[in-house]
Parts: sequence; C-alpha cells; structure tokens
Amino acid sequence: MTRTQSLCTLATIAALAAGPGLAHAKLVGKKVSYKQGKVALEGYLAYDDAVTGKRPAVLVVHDWMGISAETRRRVDMLATLGYVALAADVYGKGVRPTTPDAAGKQAGKWKGDRPGLRARVRAALDFLLKRPEADPARSAAMGYCFGGTAALELARSGAPVAGVISFHGGLSTPTPGLTAFKGKLLVLHGADDPHVPPAEVASFEQEAREAGLDWQLIAYGGAVHAFTNPGAGADKSKGAAYDERADRRSWQAMQQFFTELFSAAPSPR
Amino acid sequence: MTRTQSLCTLATIAALAAGPGLAHAKLVGKKVSYKQGKVALEGYLAYDDAVTGKRPAVLVVHDWMGISAETRRRVDMLATLGYVALAADVYGKGVRPTTPDAAGKQAGKWKGDRPGLRARVRAALDFLLKRPEADPARSAAMGYCFGGTAALELARSGAPVAGVISFHGGLSTPTPGLTAFKGKLLVLHGADDPHVPPAEVASFEQEAREAGLDWQLIAYGGAVHAFTNPGAGADKSKGAAYDERADRRSWQAMQQFFTELFSAAPSPR
Repeated sequence: MTRTQSLCTLATIAALAAGPGLAHAKLVGKKVSYKQGKVALEGYLAYDDAVTGKRPAVLVVHDWMGISAETRRRVDMLATLGYVALAADVYGKGVRPTTPDAAGKQAGKWKGDRPGLRARVRAALDFLLKRPEADPARSAAMGYCFGGTAALELARSGAPVAGVISFHGGLSTPTPGLTAFKGKLLVLHGADDPHVPPAEVASFEQEAREAGLDWQLIAYGGAVHAFTNPGAGADKSKGAAYDERADRRSWQAMQQFFTELFSAAPSPR
Repeated sequence: MTRTQSLCTLATIAALAAGPGLAHAKLVGKKVSYKQGKVALEGYLAYDDAVTGKRPAVLVVHDWMGISAETRRRVDMLATLGYVALAADVYGKGVRPTTPDAAGKQAGKWKGDRPGLRARVRAALDFLLKRPEADPARSAAMGYCFGGTAALELARSGAPVAGVISFHGGLSTPTPGLTAFKGKLLVLHGADDPHVPPAEVASFEQEAREAGLDWQLIAYGGAVHAFTNPGAGADKSKGAAYDERADRRSWQAMQQFFTELFSAAPSPR
C-alpha cells in the first residue's frame, strides 16, 4: 500500500500539562492513500507526534462536500486531544465536489448504495486500525451530516468500533437493524433540523431500542442542520446554519463519550 | 422566620484540591423551616462550611415520596460540588407519605393544582436565595420525577433562575407556556419511560421551541422512570427502575450544565 508522503507539520502547540518530558506536542497532519478493493482513496490522518505508543483511534466521515478544510480541522482537533484520527474518503481520490449540486449528486449516489457506503467506510476503518499509532481495541467512528449517516451504517454493519457518533446526520436507512453492533451510540441532533424530522428521529430510536443497544440522543433546541459547521452561515431559515452553542456542547458530549469509551474497564453492555 | 436549629455535621471530607488553606471541607446538612404564606414547610439545606463567600444555589424538588433519604443524598452531593443546595418541601411540614398510595395522592393533588405547586416551589426558592451562602445571581432549580415536573412549572412561572433541570420528570402541563422564562432548560429523559411517553416529549419540545428558549433534551436509551434512584430496583418491566449508566451520565450532564451556567460571562440568550 502506498502512502502519499506529503507530511506536513501543522502546528507546534504547547502541551496542556507542562510537565517534564511533555515540553511540546507536535501535531502531524497528512494526506494518506489507501484502497477499497482496486479503488484509490485519499484520506487525511492526524496525530500528536509527541505521544508515544498506541492510542485510541477515531474515524471521521465527511459531510456531503467530501473531505474539506472543515473535515481536516476536526481531525486536527481530535489529534490535539490525543487521538489518532482519520478522515475517511467515501467519494474516491480526486472526487471533490465544488458546488452544492455536485455534492448532492455524490451524497445521493452513496445514500442510495448503502452496501457500497458501508464498504467505503469500512475500508477507511481497516486502514486506520492498522496504523502504528492506533490501538485497534479502542476505536470509534463519527461523522457530520452525510458522514453521520455513513457512521451509523458502519454501526449497522457490525463493525468492531467501541462507539459511533452522528453529528446532525440523517438517521433513516433502507435497511434498519442495529443488532450486529456491539458498541455504544451517541446521536447529536439539531432539534429544529428540517432534514432530520421528528418521525425520522422516532424511527431511529425504535431501531436502537429494538437492538437493545446502549444509545443516547441529545436534542439541541434551536439548532438546525450542519450546526457544527461555521461555513454554514447564520441563517437558520435555510435549514442549515452554524450554532456556536450546539457546536460547543456537542463537542463536549463527544469528549465525555470518548472518555467513557476509552477509560473504562471493559464490561458487558 | 424561624429555623429549625438541628444543625448536624454530616461528614468531614477531604477537599478535592489539597492546596494550602483547603485542608478539609466540612459538609453541613440540616433541616430548615420556612413558610409559604402561613403554611409551615420543612426543607433540607446543605453546603460546604469550608467554602467562604456566596456560591451558586441549587434548589432540588423531591419526587412523589416527598423529602426522603434519597433527596437528602442528592442535596449533600450538590454541597460537595461546592453549591448551597436546598430540598424544597412541597407537601408541608410533617406531610411525609410512607406508601406509594399515599405518595400518589399527594403528588396527584399538587399536579392538579399547578398555581399552588408553583407557589410552593417559589417559596423554597425565595428562602434559598436569601441564605447568606447563596449568590442569588447564580441559581438553578432541578427535580426528580414529580419534582422535575415541579421544577418545570417554576420555569413556566418565569422564576429568576439561570437554569432548570428535570430528571425523569413528567413534561406535560395543563398550562403550557415557557415564554416568561429567561434561563436555560435541560431535560434528562429515560427513552423507555412509560410515564413520559413520546407524545408528551414532543409536546414539551414544541412548547420550548415556541418560547425560543435555550433548551436541550437528552434521551437515555434503555432507561425508564426513576432511573437515578437506587431504591427503584432493577426491574424495568415495572416502568420505574434504577439505571446506573443513565444515573452517572445524567449527573455528569448536570455538572456540565451548571459549569456553563455559573462560569460563563453573562450573555444574551
């Protein structure tokens, strides 16, 4: 497997705890090439090079625009928290929509091919878990909008991740069924998201209930679709807009979820 | 106003941060007498006597059993976090149901008299905010089951608290309307709670939405009514049972909510 070697040091940041031997953390972020079958894919990987040893691994699935500056920003943020994080590439190397219309076509194609979508995300997960930085026993997947939907499909496939998070993802699926999943689920939902209406939320909750899963759903009042994305603007009447409050709270919820996933002793669910 | 002087020191606990001058925290818990009009009420107050100065104040409304050992335990837990906390007495001094049947009659009486319920809770809040330990600019109200319902009625009344939390409380009201409330709302809900069915959750969300409030609702998968109460047993088929996971997570959510309420600079909502 070849890897793009365009390694770039993004930032040298002061370690949060300035103890001896923790002088500085060095955030590494780079494009990485991997494959699903014969299809070339290009993800984005980040980790703190000052951390030694294997650490929990987090897969991030992009929104309908594909891997973007916003996706990479989130992957970097996860790396600064101490995780090794990979942005999965669902669309394929070089397939990067530049307009909402093109993005809609790509997202629609993959939402219409759930087996294919699951396979694309699984290929990224498998690549991540083989990284020398990654502890395959401590992994999670998350995603934004379209990527939230994709992360939930990964859960439905029974992938061996300890947890899955959806940030304002669509919750419906043509093939419901979460019984194969052994991890925990956290759904972070804009309560006014017109793209994920109450009936869809109710159906998802029923799907999770019937699977006997450990699941949680947080509804953020006033938040609409894409609430974590500063690029989504401020006009909630459009149905997608940034919401600083929900962004901050959902990131905190994610951190608490990861702390619980990765710190606790293994226990039956 | 007379106060029962049965002050008792419940515990001397090591301070979490063992810095100079923080040798030991001293948890004080005591019965306190106050009134609503001419009606004698008896609450339970707790605070850390090693903390100097005014601190955030948290009102706790009991479940259908009235103030119980479980209520006092929660008030003590809030005191160990650094708050001054008061268990409100809705039922009246000496009115302490000892059977579910008697508890149901009391809770039913007050759920059928929302103006009276609001007045009882407000009297407790006013008493708490006049305590020398309390900073009236930093206050919140919370409650369990029946007490969650009562805390939400306090919000509907427009009481001057920065935040209100319901733990597995009933969310319906004969007099919906949250526009008078200027604080934030957090609803912690058992997703399988048969006493708070989905239609009731949906109505509440619509009420909060129409008020333009800052609100959040966390649904805990697998949790039923009374999920925070170890005394509720483990048989979820009865509709009320303890759930260690939801208990722990909801307490964490409460702490994060309080941190946000009481640490942040004042800002328009």
